[in-house]
Amino acid sequence: MALGIGDDAALLNVTPGQQLVMAADTLVAGIHFPVTASARQIATRALCVNLSDMAAMGAQPRWFTLALTLPREQANAEWLAEFSAGLAVIANQYDVALVGGDTTSGPLTISLTLLGETPVGAALTRAGAVPGDTVFVTGSLGDGAAALSLISSKKGFNDDSDRLLQRFYCPQPQIQTGLKLRSVASACIDVSDGLMADLGHICKASGVAAVIRAEQLPIAADVRQLSADHALSWALSGGDDYQLCFTISPGQLPMLERWIEQGDLDACRIGTIEKNIESIDFVSVIDKDNNLLAIEKPGYNHFGH
Amino acid sequence: MALGIGDDAALLNVTPGQQLVMAADTLVAGIHFPVTASARQIATRALCVNLSDMAAMGAQPRWFTLALTLPREQANAEWLAEFSAGLAVIANQYDVALVGGDTTSGPLTISLTLLGETPVGAALTRAGAVPGDTVFVTGSLGDGAAALSLISSKKGFNDDSDRLLQRFYCPQPQIQTGLKLRSVASACIDVSDGLMADLGHICKASGVAAVIRAEQLPIAADVRQLSADHALSWALSGGDDYQLCFTISPGQLPMLERWIEQGDLDACRIGTIEKNIESIDFVSVIDKDNNLLAIEKPGYNHFGH
Repeated sequence: MALGIGDDAALLNVTPGQQLVMAADTLVAGIHFPVTASARQIATRALCVNLSDMAAMGAQPRWFTLALTLPREQANAEWLAEFSAGLAVIANQYDVALVGGDTTSGPLTISLTLLGETPVGAALTRAGAVPGDTVFVTGSLGDGAAALSLISSKKGFNDDSDRLLQRFYCPQPQIQTGLKLRSVASACIDVSDGLMADLGHICKASGVAAVIRAEQLPIAADVRQLSADHALSWALSGGDDYQLCFTISPGQLPMLERWIEQGDLDACRIGTIEKNIESIDFVSVIDKDNNLLAIEKPGYNHFGH
Repeated sequence: MALGIGDDAALLNVTPGQQLVMAADTLVAGIHFPVTASARQIATRALCVNLSDMAAMGAQPRWFTLALTLPREQANAEWLAEFSAGLAVIANQYDVALVGGDTTSGPLTISLTLLGETPVGAALTRAGAVPGDTVFVTGSLGDGAAALSLISSKKGFNDDSDRLLQRFYCPQPQIQTGLKLRSVASACIDVSDGLMADLGHICKASGVAAVIRAEQLPIAADVRQLSADHALSWALSGGDDYQLCFTISPGQLPMLERWIEQGDLDACRIGTIEKNIESIDFVSVIDKDNNLLAIEKPGYNHFGH
């Protein structure tokens, strides 16, 4: 085994030419999704969230197993058909095959284990960022937290046409970007716990610090509109975005900038990697006048509790 | 993928020379183990039960992921230390490495996904039994069901010195036997749902029927002693034994009999594979006078419900 617990996924030296990437994640009703979520929404979110770990490793997802725990009252043919249909759509979209698993009776819980492949040595890990690297993030930040706030304020409200709710129930795992960043990014992680926490994981694993420029954070208009007050803290600490945060060495920077200019990569630069001075936090956020901002972590959101 | 859903595990053609074997299983408190079970007992049973799927495929287990859902009141350092210690003992014993997973808050549920390896084409599957084959089973049958009965009648009673309770909390996955049976057995399954159900799976996948001789079933003395009335039905339908049931062609039979005589294999013959005539059940049980026995399936045992 080349890489075990402590990164987004495990690398398994299965063959001389290939490494296996294996990741597991669990979603619990009322915690990771509202109890009002439909079977299709739950299946979609579960597989997308797990695929995001593959994206973060630069892995090509291949296979997954599903452990579904289901209350008796929910274990009817209609619910299961909807769940299966939701799973099949995402599995087809990302070319990943369900190869096993089981269904048990109990409180609604979905556990997925995904397997992916990368050429040996090509996987993206959290370690590898060095001072002087530039920090990038794909897409936009704060969508997940804004959606959470929307769902919490309108319990039971599901509107498929709402972009933010779509981002929550159907996050788009950045598989193609992960593959593109292989042997380009010096470190990579997916933003599941919030940018500061996840970039903090890169810093810890790489032995560095990061400085984020608040005004460079990509925050969508509908997120700012939902709450101008919360938008920045949602983007920094909200989580559930499933974008990729990655670092780029000075040597690779021109190529990356070119990709972005040409529209081959949807990402933007948000900060820099610095030396780690132990007395400061791993991740600092500064405004455009270089003043350090104090960032509060929003409370963790449990549905229906 | 060489083999997907529908067998004990999936075979993944990762390399020209090797196949990957992946299996997932979930245990829920109050259903798969009593709520009174200790953290160590739960961990031990969870990993052993999952390893049994690897044994049934003739796979060498290599890696696993763990998804642990834990109520807040149980998520203390002591419980987790005991759980980890139990897991580590079995992982070391069977040389399998924990490579990932996560812990979430919720009702106590343990989901494991195991990965193993076999040379291409060597895996044991449920399909392959043909009329004229002999049916064997390892160890003894009915231990699991007898233990269940013991646990149900003495709620909260845990005695590590009791062989039957040990068999329940620490079933012994037949990994070495599975490896030995590679390219020897024509079909193989682990007895988790009960001999009749599991041998039925072999029959269905192989398109054959099976006839079991009741007097040849290996039933331990303490099982008969616990209930002379129930011993046969525990052995046939009780489940939770995690022995291997496998079929052997006439050509391989002499070698297998020699292994058993020499003490290299703990197994005994219990019946034969026959042509499948659609009007009869897949698995029939006869007594020593060749009379067909009517076998009742014992009720499914939920702990604490």
